[in-house]
Amino acid sequence: MNNQKQAVLEANKVFYEAFRRADYQTMETLWATDHDIAVIHPGWSPLHGRKAVLDAWRRIFDGTTGSNMNCTEATVYFMDAAAFVVCIERMPEGEVVATNIFVRENGEWKLTHHHGGLIAQIAGDESV
Amino acid sequence: MNNQKQAVLEANKVFYEAFRRADYQTMETLWATDHDIAVIHPGWSPLHGRKAVLDAWRRIFDGTTGSNMNCTEATVYFMDAAAFVVCIERMPEGEVVATNIFVRENGEWKLTHHHGGLIAQIAGDESV
Repeated sequence: MNNQKQAVLEANKVFYEAFRRADYQTMETLWATDHDIAVIHPGWSPLHGRKAVLDAWRRIFDGTTGSNMNCTEATVYFMDAAAFVVCIERMPEGEVVATNIFVRENGEWKLTHHHGGLIAQIAGDESV
Repeated sequence: MNNQKQAVLEANKVFYEAFRRADYQTMETLWATDHDIAVIHPGWSPLHGRKAVLDAWRRIFDGTTGSNMNCTEATVYFMDAAAFVVCIERMPEGEVVATNIFVRENGEWKLTHHHGGLIAQIAGDESV
């Protein structure tokens, strides 16, 4: 795996560490500032723009000290100046499948988009 | 809106036309060939790689002549050589929120990833 793919995986890991710790201060630094950003939390409608994205993290983190979540099976898809990671978020409540899109800003990989969606609870249910 | 953003929206539109018509031959041409690709259909686990992605479309389209689906509220996020579109897929059965990632290959925008996830049916349910 090349260095940039490793750097994307590292940025993805730092994102989940902030998520797990409900660490808003770190979360805020992980998102792109020179690019527009968006987020789709499981079951929510899309949120567009920095204010909406960060306000949502603040609400999610409010009143919690963190969550027991692990990001597994992370796979990087690399597109030179941009990349995305597909992974599974495992929590006691269930599993969420995530797409995280990163863009390179000043030598660092920053998030432009997080899309988390529920995986069907019924094994073998692959209806669209 | 600049020309490239319009070109991404056009590629997104062609994707949904193929989806609606259950047109596998067209769908196959819309996905990147010089980049790895992935797909997450609502409720499914992620599928990685060209064979898995295309086999899934074939299964989805098998035995159907199409679906009554409209892509609305499409918003482009542009990252130079890559871009993504966030939109809502409206169908008689309900709504799906989608993230579609495109990469530029030989002057054309090609899909590298489609992530469709259900929007909660309960209005106001914004739990993560």
